[in-house]
Amino acid sequence: MFFASDNAGPAHPRVLEAVTRANDGYRMGYGADAEMAEVRQAIRDLFEAPEAAVYLVATGTAANALILGTLAQPWETIFCTKMAHINEDECNAPEFYTGGAKLTVVPDERAKMTPDALRAAIEGEETRGVHGPQRGPVAITQVTEKGTVHSVDEIAALSAVAKEYGLKVHLDGARFGNAVAALGCTPAEMSWKAGVDAVSFGGTKNGCMGVEACIFFDPAHAWEFELRRKRGAHLFSKHRYLSAQMQGYLADGLWLELAGRANAACARLAAGLSGRNDVRLPWGAEANMIFFEAPRAVHRRLLDGGATYYVMSGDPETGPDDAWLTGRLVCDWSMDEDGVDRFLGLLP
Amino acid sequence: MFFASDNAGPAHPRVLEAVTRANDGYRMGYGADAEMAEVRQAIRDLFEAPEAAVYLVATGTAANALILGTLAQPWETIFCTKMAHINEDECNAPEFYTGGAKLTVVPDERAKMTPDALRAAIEGEETRGVHGPQRGPVAITQVTEKGTVHSVDEIAALSAVAKEYGLKVHLDGARFGNAVAALGCTPAEMSWKAGVDAVSFGGTKNGCMGVEACIFFDPAHAWEFELRRKRGAHLFSKHRYLSAQMQGYLADGLWLELAGRANAACARLAAGLSGRNDVRLPWGAEANMIFFEAPRAVHRRLLDGGATYYVMSGDPETGPDDAWLTGRLVCDWSMDEDGVDRFLGLLP
Amino acid sequence: MFFASDNAGPAHPRVLEAVTRANDGYRMGYGADAEMAEVRQAIRDLFEAPEAAVYLVATGTAANALILGTLAQPWETIFCTKMAHINEDECNAPEFYTGGAKLTVVPDERAKMTPDALRAAIEGEETRGVHGPQRGPVAITQVTEKGTVHSVDEIAALSAVAKEYGLKVHLDGARFGNAVAALGCTPAEMSWKAGVDAVSFGGTKNGCMGVEACIFFDPAHAWEFELRRKRGAHLFSKHRYLSAQMQGYLADGLWLELAGRANAACARLAAGLSGRNDVRLPWGAEANMIFFEAPRAVHRRLLDGGATYYVMSGDPETGPDDAWLTGRLVCDWSMDEDGVDRFLGLLP
Amino acid sequence: MFFASDNAGPAHPRVLEAVTRANDGYRMGYGADAEMAEVRQAIRDLFEAPEAAVYLVATGTAANALILGTLAQPWETIFCTKMAHINEDECNAPEFYTGGAKLTVVPDERAKMTPDALRAAIEGEETRGVHGPQRGPVAITQVTEKGTVHSVDEIAALSAVAKEYGLKVHLDGARFGNAVAALGCTPAEMSWKAGVDAVSFGGTKNGCMGVEACIFFDPAHAWEFELRRKRGAHLFSKHRYLSAQMQGYLADGLWLELAGRANAACARLAAGLSGRNDVRLPWGAEANMIFFEAPRAVHRRLLDGGATYYVMSGDPETGPDDAWLTGRLVCDWSMDEDGVDRFLGLLP
Repeated sequence: MFFASDNAGPAHPRVLEAVTRANDGYRMGYGADAEMAEVRQAIRDLFEAPEAAVYLVATGTAANALILGTLAQPWETIFCTKMAHINEDECNAPEFYTGGAKLTVVPDERAKMTPDALRAAIEGEETRGVHGPQRGPVAITQVTEKGTVHSVDEIAALSAVAKEYGLKVHLDGARFGNAVAALGCTPAEMSWKAGVDAVSFGGTKNGCMGVEACIFFDPAHAWEFELRRKRGAHLFSKHRYLSAQMQGYLADGLWLELAGRANAACARLAAGLSGRNDVRLPWGAEANMIFFEAPRAVHRRLLDGGATYYVMSGDPETGPDDAWLTGRLVCDWSMDEDGVDRFLGLLP
Repeated sequence: MFFASDNAGPAHPRVLEAVTRANDGYRMGYGADAEMAEVRQAIRDLFEAPEAAVYLVATGTAANALILGTLAQPWETIFCTKMAHINEDECNAPEFYTGGAKLTVVPDERAKMTPDALRAAIEGEETRGVHGPQRGPVAITQVTEKGTVHSVDEIAALSAVAKEYGLKVHLDGARFGNAVAALGCTPAEMSWKAGVDAVSFGGTKNGCMGVEACIFFDPAHAWEFELRRKRGAHLFSKHRYLSAQMQGYLADGLWLELAGRANAACARLAAGLSGRNDVRLPWGAEANMIFFEAPRAVHRRLLDGGATYYVMSGDPETGPDDAWLTGRLVCDWSMDEDGVDRFLGLLP
Repeated sequence: MFFASDNAGPAHPRVLEAVTRANDGYRMGYGADAEMAEVRQAIRDLFEAPEAAVYLVATGTAANALILGTLAQPWETIFCTKMAHINEDECNAPEFYTGGAKLTVVPDERAKMTPDALRAAIEGEETRGVHGPQRGPVAITQVTEKGTVHSVDEIAALSAVAKEYGLKVHLDGARFGNAVAALGCTPAEMSWKAGVDAVSFGGTKNGCMGVEACIFFDPAHAWEFELRRKRGAHLFSKHRYLSAQMQGYLADGLWLELAGRANAACARLAAGLSGRNDVRLPWGAEANMIFFEAPRAVHRRLLDGGATYYVMSGDPETGPDDAWLTGRLVCDWSMDEDGVDRFLGLLP
Repeated sequence: MFFASDNAGPAHPRVLEAVTRANDGYRMGYGADAEMAEVRQAIRDLFEAPEAAVYLVATGTAANALILGTLAQPWETIFCTKMAHINEDECNAPEFYTGGAKLTVVPDERAKMTPDALRAAIEGEETRGVHGPQRGPVAITQVTEKGTVHSVDEIAALSAVAKEYGLKVHLDGARFGNAVAALGCTPAEMSWKAGVDAVSFGGTKNGCMGVEACIFFDPAHAWEFELRRKRGAHLFSKHRYLSAQMQGYLADGLWLELAGRANAACARLAAGLSGRNDVRLPWGAEANMIFFEAPRAVHRRLLDGGATYYVMSGDPETGPDDAWLTGRLVCDWSMDEDGVDRFLGLLP
């Protein structure tokens, strides 16, 4: 009953098998492995983007920070929500990799920027010539940090605002698969067809050991990105082990299958939590992560019963029983119906 | 007959087995996995350093740059040789991670700084108050980029100079195991007992997929390093896969066994190349990497025969047959006697 | 009738005289001039801080950014208001000089952080270990960017919150003199006695050509600051010309006299604007800068009549006559009663 | 008898008069002053470069670092001599402003790079793809730090090498005037006509208080430079005081007259030191700075007699009388024949 994070579960056996298969003989290092050539092509195919520049790194923060470093100048500001991973969970990595750019927090509705709020934020910057930060890229998280999912139209609407001002759009897709599974769209529809310029396409949270693809639909960014990746110390010498993970992940649509599984487990969880007086789901259940509010006593019962998850808004151990606290439940691909049902069975 | 680099060979099966073994159930992320606790203790034991701060990252450049970022201030200069990996092969990652520190090139003898040259270089800096860069850490590479090995006394002598000036010492041990195998000393003797403050302890080139330990003998650096690692996007969420590699690497002395194997293959290679009129070994054969000079015709014969290695000083295909060119031969753990002998058999 | 900014007026003759007086014979460069020794002592005396480290730079942004670079680590976040000069008007200089720290916007009341809002903002950071930015210094602007003035107690209350969390406090005193003149307190009362650790003490806006003092009450920061100043290219070789400006500015209390004059002109302006139906002063008139709301027609009349000032919220030329727009009026030391009265005489 | 530096003397009265003249009434800030418009045109005229982008900053280090930040990427390396001001005297400001670029030291002859040495250094970089730093701009100092002067042909030859590789050329002209006076060429001949892309045109050392012009012959760099200047905190609000200095400096060829004067004083000094057994001038006397070698006893006699200058290679007070030490003598515009003769009169 482990719902603390989707980075806590195991890698899928087929990913590990691909790694083991690649562990044979010699390969040229630093991305010149045959596996990478195959992965590059597979991602171009998957995204219907035959020109895309495609790179692999090992962490989601690296993917985001390196892409933003490539898209943003040090004197610019990046538009994102307050709860964006790049704003709250990367210990200033975007600031580091951009050489000191700023992040402008755009008000959100259900963890999503609205076009109007984005426009207002953009209009609020670059109003004083050289004195203020200049307008930089717009960064969208999909699935959001609250578990909500932008529709393709919502992404397109945000991109359209960005384009009005000539700004680039980055999509932090640490849970890209979960979003595609939720929306039933294609990767292209959720990215470049909706105006996105670059994507962090996550593998780590969805069945890999540690691999994320950085995708630029405009290959003009390729060489600069390669230099930034090396300078950031994110270029793997034995690169085949990144490639192989992604190979296994992409083969036969495993990425989408696993994302669908995680979403299904989460939906089952949400269904079991719905319709009760002692539980509220403030952000709904749109992908593989939900937040639920419940009295402290409920949380304690779940935790004491062996469930593992984060309680975000207070100490579940100390305080009045009837105070409501918020918990976060994340399902990874390996969460099965049994795990969900055992969790639900702990409820009073 | 692949001698291009020790990052081109496969991981050792026991390393992969450890990874597979760790791929089971849930783990808290970001280094809170049980495997890491075990690894931390194993490294402290191996280095006889019960207080050491120990961290894992995936690339050697990350290990070096993060350690130097922790030891050096942006207005300082780092003392190293011209051919040091941090100077020539990291695309300014040390400059990036230190926030703009400089590297002062110290003249070398056989790719090693001498104490006198180091002292002269240190004396040459910080001579003009606030105007010039301030003296920063001394960075030693062991095994050097030319395949030579510092004796323990040589490291101690360099450290002694550094300490005279109150400077810290970093050891880039991407081939730490090969050096220990060559010297027959202990890890402690080659590091803190010889005055070294921090070590990049390499796994990648010696049988792992991608893992390096960063070791600070003074744990005062721990928290700052953790923040720098996260900010540099080098903290793995599914950290167990780094830990497990290192686990397999350390268990039953595999690290030293593999290093010894690579060194032995290299010695066999050197023996076969010695005593010939058409080959010279300018730097000897001290660990697992040698450079050899030979007429172009010899290189062409080897390359045409299927050997893979880098020719450093010219194009083996074009030019007079009797012009001497330098090749680099690196043996990794998986190079066996047969591979060596087939290579030697290609010689005229 | 120039009210656009207090950086638009001339330097006071006594400041220029001091510069002229210093332009005689040779001086050692880089701050070793006799004038600087005198200035250092004068500032220590003025602030009743015999140990303070005192430096001069030429721009307010340099003073703020260098001080924040000294007080903040790259992985920290600085707490300030949205309209803080460091947030909106320095083109990411604080991010640059800190090596990539973040700025956390604290909600304000009348351009001032409240202790509760500050506490909430601090509590909202550093809640996720190594993942989020760490808590860094608190930055207060006095006079604020809206012309309001913190009372000494208000500063002390903000500092007290900062100290609870072990955070340093910086005071951006680009208009320090105007605030002291408004409050009738001493520089010490408005700074270290109220818990402030470092001050940007402005001269430029108040009668100098271009000089600001950076004051650290704890001299432990001195050497690092000196290195940062040189590295930032803000150390003047012919430093005497900075020193001399500050000499003239401090002599016989000129700094306070000029600030008082500017405040008085502003008060006269505010008095003339008050009690009218067609003018509102949303932030009052506390120092030397006011904002006033008035119908477009009123703005146009003033501007057409020869007044110079910024209209912040719209184009005074285009749009309905009765739409209310906000203008900003800043008085510098050289604004006299006649200038104010001529402006007021333009009102309908 | 002050020969310590040309930043130690006073500003020329006509420079101060221009400042005083500008201290009248209101000016728009931040470079929008009328004086700056005039200065911009005057510099374009002087350099026969009607399109040039022209900016003013207050320190030579700022001029160099901001220009190099504009011309170099963080992953590049800048080619310069060991004794270049940017390498030895700016406390890593170039590294800071470029975001972590490296400086590659090119061997020099008489403090000047030779085309062959430059070519070899360029060839030595960018030989390993993404792993090493990429080739960046070439930085020439004119007058050099040893007082030697590149001929126009020498500059053109270095630029030609740079252009072969597509690299930009920066000229650190802190003593630009002295070089023009020495060569009898035009500013255009010594800069863009010789292949130079950007110039730091010094005023501070040659009669100003603190002002340097940054000149880009290709105005494509203008906006980026403006943002970098503001972000570096080098944009003056009361900019007229920078403009006015440069106005006075340029009017009626004052810059060249003062440089000629300093050169003449230096030539007189050199003449008096020549032909003696106890003095050697290792670098000759080409502009306004010479180095002289003499026995310790000679140095002591000069210093005891009241001369002020730096002894570079040892302590003049302590050691054998007959040991030879090197002194540096710099003449600024205000050094007259009498001062020179009094110095020479101290010789034994």
